[in-house]
Amino acid sequence: MSEIIPVILAGGQGTRLWPMSRSARPKQFIPLLGALSLFQQTLLRVADRARYGAPIILTHADYRFLVAEQALEVGVALGAILLEPVSRNTAVAIAAAAETALAQDADAVLNVLPSDHAIADDADYHGAVTTAAAAARDGWLVTFGITPDRPETGYGYIALGTEVNTQVRKVGRFVEKPDLDGAQAMLGQGGYVWNSGMFMFSAAVFLAECERLAVDTKRAAHTAVHKAKRDLDFVRLDEEAFATAPNISVDYAIFERTDKAAVLSVSFGWSDLGAWNAVWQALTPDAAGNVSVGPSLLSNTTNCLVVTDNAHVVVEGLDDVAVIATEDAIFVGRLSQAQRVGALAKSLKEDAKTQGLTDVHKTAYRPWGGYASVLLGERFQVKRLFVKPGKKLSLQKHHHRSEHWVVVSGTAEVTVDGKITVLSENQSIYLPLGCTHRLANPGKILLEVVEVQTGSYLGEDDIIRIEDEFGRAG
Amino acid sequence: MSEIIPVILAGGQGTRLWPMSRSARPKQFIPLLGALSLFQQTLLRVADRARYGAPIILTHADYRFLVAEQALEVGVALGAILLEPVSRNTAVAIAAAAETALAQDADAVLNVLPSDHAIADDADYHGAVTTAAAAARDGWLVTFGITPDRPETGYGYIALGTEVNTQVRKVGRFVEKPDLDGAQAMLGQGGYVWNSGMFMFSAAVFLAECERLAVDTKRAAHTAVHKAKRDLDFVRLDEEAFATAPNISVDYAIFERTDKAAVLSVSFGWSDLGAWNAVWQALTPDAAGNVSVGPSLLSNTTNCLVVTDNAHVVVEGLDDVAVIATEDAIFVGRLSQAQRVGALAKSLKEDAKTQGLTDVHKTAYRPWGGYASVLLGERFQVKRLFVKPGKKLSLQKHHHRSEHWVVVSGTAEVTVDGKITVLSENQSIYLPLGCTHRLANPGKILLEVVEVQTGSYLGEDDIIRIEDEFGRAG
Repeated sequence: MSEIIPVILAGGQGTRLWPMSRSARPKQFIPLLGALSLFQQTLLRVADRARYGAPIILTHADYRFLVAEQALEVGVALGAILLEPVSRNTAVAIAAAAETALAQDADAVLNVLPSDHAIADDADYHGAVTTAAAAARDGWLVTFGITPDRPETGYGYIALGTEVNTQVRKVGRFVEKPDLDGAQAMLGQGGYVWNSGMFMFSAAVFLAECERLAVDTKRAAHTAVHKAKRDLDFVRLDEEAFATAPNISVDYAIFERTDKAAVLSVSFGWSDLGAWNAVWQALTPDAAGNVSVGPSLLSNTTNCLVVTDNAHVVVEGLDDVAVIATEDAIFVGRLSQAQRVGALAKSLKEDAKTQGLTDVHKTAYRPWGGYASVLLGERFQVKRLFVKPGKKLSLQKHHHRSEHWVVVSGTAEVTVDGKITVLSENQSIYLPLGCTHRLANPGKILLEVVEVQTGSYLGEDDIIRIEDEFGRAG
Repeated sequence: MSEIIPVILAGGQGTRLWPMSRSARPKQFIPLLGALSLFQQTLLRVADRARYGAPIILTHADYRFLVAEQALEVGVALGAILLEPVSRNTAVAIAAAAETALAQDADAVLNVLPSDHAIADDADYHGAVTTAAAAARDGWLVTFGITPDRPETGYGYIALGTEVNTQVRKVGRFVEKPDLDGAQAMLGQGGYVWNSGMFMFSAAVFLAECERLAVDTKRAAHTAVHKAKRDLDFVRLDEEAFATAPNISVDYAIFERTDKAAVLSVSFGWSDLGAWNAVWQALTPDAAGNVSVGPSLLSNTTNCLVVTDNAHVVVEGLDDVAVIATEDAIFVGRLSQAQRVGALAKSLKEDAKTQGLTDVHKTAYRPWGGYASVLLGERFQVKRLFVKPGKKLSLQKHHHRSEHWVVVSGTAEVTVDGKITVLSENQSIYLPLGCTHRLANPGKILLEVVEVQTGSYLGEDDIIRIEDEFGRAG
């Protein structure tokens, strides 16, 4: 039997989970539930190669190293990493994944799943996939519908249509996110499920429906894949072709138009973690209705969510409040109206003074490790650098700053103007302004370096890369 | 005419303004209202030497450098700085100040005032002091009563008694903090004022009443002053004598017992800033009832207080909430019940894991400048040190750590095992484990140094002081 190929959507921005989720490292790449990121949990869900083929990842170029490293961390080998050159919503992205799968296997069945959802039990998921795959092989475009257990207003609904078989029914119609009355009516009446955004279909059938119902999308995807460029482990979809695609979701482009749309009702625990109240629910509130992650003290408090990176959070006398605390930004607001965070994050992004708070975390991750700015003065900055075993930074120089490196853990191999020095813990080196230099970790453990920069301009863009093993030079 | 000597009470802990107020730098020493600390605002209020003599400061030994430096910063010369060796409440502390003043001027009139209150208009205050001083010279122990403008439950009240003169009346009786019904009744009925904790009296009359009504307090104060030791600019009250005093407030010990107690009703803007809701009120809420200090964005929010050191705080959809954010601790709670912070801070202090959050700020101030820990790893720590012009740290060594110093601003004179090196911006030096070393600022501008410590133990107590100009060696 042909393989089931997971297609994992990992290009989202997750603005409604600000300030934890930021453009440079959004929701799916942070450990929101447990020690692993949602993306890693998604990878592991479909990691059994007896059931699933190697996954195709759809993401943005900015996230390519996060994708590759997080997969490596959990030991999952990826199929293709497709980089969307511009944002064009899900229709063309999924079509590009289907083109990629089809090129290898004419009978490929795709399991499209977002990388930022929570599913309570992977075994239940596998069972649903097996059922859906059978219908997909019969030519149906199957969507997973979650049987509702409450009048949720945060999800779209699907009305169940006539029977395809005992478990799968045709889609009756799609219903936009309802108000509370509407949600209660659907829950009372029955015959409605939540639209989960998870799909199964044959790549060939899907692309045939694209050709019929969304020809611009189909052609853009086809050309973008066939003119794509390989870049290390990544497939850069052709920008010119991809950009011609309409900016439209796969629901609107295909599922609402085709007569092949079917829905498999499932009742496993599922959440789109779409806002902080959904995270609160997924984390199982205690008897007082509270959830807290990180150091905290809650007193006379009910139905609250506290998530904190580092600072100790003390909450007193509140009900229905979310407190989300990061090093440089804190959100405090009505938990039941947490979807409003999206609009607030947008307004912060539009103001140059606060834009950084929505773009980057204080710690930035790079293919070689990462860094955090720990102290910023008028004419100096202190950074913590961490370099993974065997990795090296680019050979670089700066026009406006000199640097001191102090090794605080591990071993560093430092190249300064061609001369190589090996430093161990507690040794330091000075890098005068204008010198070419490179930092590498030749050892077997993490290298940690405290970098003290001094100069008139300390921006990240004062880096002239002379050589780079991650293709960032020149 | 004899001088009016301000006696400023600056030994309080201010736990109800946690997390901004901490044991090592409490409420009166932080800039809560404007750029100056409340203590500095208090010093300036009574700085006119045509009206007031040099102030006597009552404080704890731990705060002596804060007192001296904050006075220096605003250019106010102090009279005596009396250090309370143990906490024994206000009766004995004020008696010690009276003994000190009396030794210099038999007719001294004291103006006792807390260092952590807000007063809207200093001119109104001077007018009240003039009136009160006349009554004090006539032998009255005068307390300032604030005419209430709302049914406040956070203050004690004084019932006005018979007339002393047109402006001053005898104290009828003292009323403990009332419930709301009681407060409303007193406001409606009239004849009640808030007990402000500010006093005026002749030192001689006060001490005579102490001799009569609180002889243990009187004798403890007398001996503690006459056996006191001078230590630099400070007067260390004799611990043995001071500790024999009953732990009692001046209200209970004297004012509630004497028949010389009088009250001057005033109606200037005043607050004891006793909890965050009092701070909110003192800072003048905007039309929506909000006050925010520090970077913040408030949306759909009313009657809230946001105070943040550094992190950007976003509040959405809340009413009557305080958000107080420091680097390492955040309080979020019902603003109108902000007095509960005191109990919460106490419970944090009782837990070894969180005690530090109530004791110290991330930045510690020292006579020579100060330091902040900016990064703490397993076996390393990065600190920012700042040294004032002309100041030097103690000559010291460490058993468990070596250090790198990188000068990022100003000029450093570094002594290592007897050898002196002068470093300017962008130069660094290594201090091997066990070396004796000293850091000094020989220049005219602030010296800033990034210190990278490496070692197996990085606690503040691994400092062997060999020489110290602030009396901390040996």
